[in-house]
Amino acid sequence: MELSRVNQLSYEDFVSTFGNVVEKCPIVAAAVWARRPFGSMDALEDAISDFIDALPESGREGILRCHPDLAGRDLRVGTLTQESLKEQANVGLDALTSEEASSMARLNEDYKAHFGFPFVICARMNDKPNIFRQMRARMANGRAAERERGIEEVKKICRLRLRDLVHADARVTL
Amino acid sequence: MELSRVNQLSYEDFVSTFGNVVEKCPIVAAAVWARRPFGSMDALEDAISDFIDALPESGREGILRCHPDLAGRDLRVGTLTQESLKEQANVGLDALTSEEASSMARLNEDYKAHFGFPFVICARMNDKPNIFRQMRARMANGRAAERERGIEEVKKICRLRLRDLVHADARVTL
Repeated sequence: MELSRVNQLSYEDFVSTFGNVVEKCPIVAAAVWARRPFGSMDALEDAISDFIDALPESGREGILRCHPDLAGRDLRVGTLTQESLKEQANVGLDALTSEEASSMARLNEDYKAHFGFPFVICARMNDKPNIFRQMRARMANGRAAERERGIEEVKKICRLRLRDLVHADARVTL
Repeated sequence: MELSRVNQLSYEDFVSTFGNVVEKCPIVAAAVWARRPFGSMDALEDAISDFIDALPESGREGILRCHPDLAGRDLRVGTLTQESLKEQANVGLDALTSEEASSMARLNEDYKAHFGFPFVICARMNDKPNIFRQMRARMANGRAAERERGIEEVKKICRLRLRDLVHADARVTL
């Protein structure tokens, strides 16, 4: 879709197109629709980023809690969103060895028990060994730092999902 | 489910149970989970209400935009959430005469064109004639007043959905 077309969408079509650029949080697209027209992809990304930053802390934690575990229950039982499935499969999380799978399951549980939200990382910008490394390393962070780190990853995921949906070269004149 | 059980849920089970008490906004349940234990149903409702009130204006409008039209496309094509379907069917919106249906469609379009979000009303607390009356009457409101009115209705819907899920008599000692 061209950005000029994006700017003409009704809120219903906008939310139906961009409702999952932040995982399971259509409220984000529904809120930023009011800021159209967007002069560039950066402007659309900035509107989303600004909205997330303006949420209370509990809301940013809420966003993290709407994310699935990596190689977790949703992947096993087939309830991942289409976008998450593609991202997790792309980095091989759908084909872990049994040793990797139990290691990942333990890391997920430890992380969630410690922070009260799941480990979120932009899988498309990492490979499998790096994801394992990060899961271990980030456990040492403080809770507030890790919440903001998770949100930074949410924004990276969002940026890539947006660029799957909109032609980046479609700069428009406002 | 008893409230004491609610207070023991992991965030994953909490979001999976209460993720749609605010239509298509699991972020709300995901955010308020951190405020458990809840001493009463009122405390849980208050936590949700406080979270909604702490959102930026754009977020409250975003919540409204996550709601389906009454007797709209989602009802026709079968994409309403289970909760919305029950609520709309309960008040007869799934069985409008063709005259009522075209009147409702026109009122929906006029309302959305005027306000930039859909008409939201707690269908279970109204009957069909009253819903038609309100759709006409609320068109005369200012945008800010109508946004807040819509949010009040969201909270009423939320309260009834919560009470479908949790035993109200389950007061717990914290």
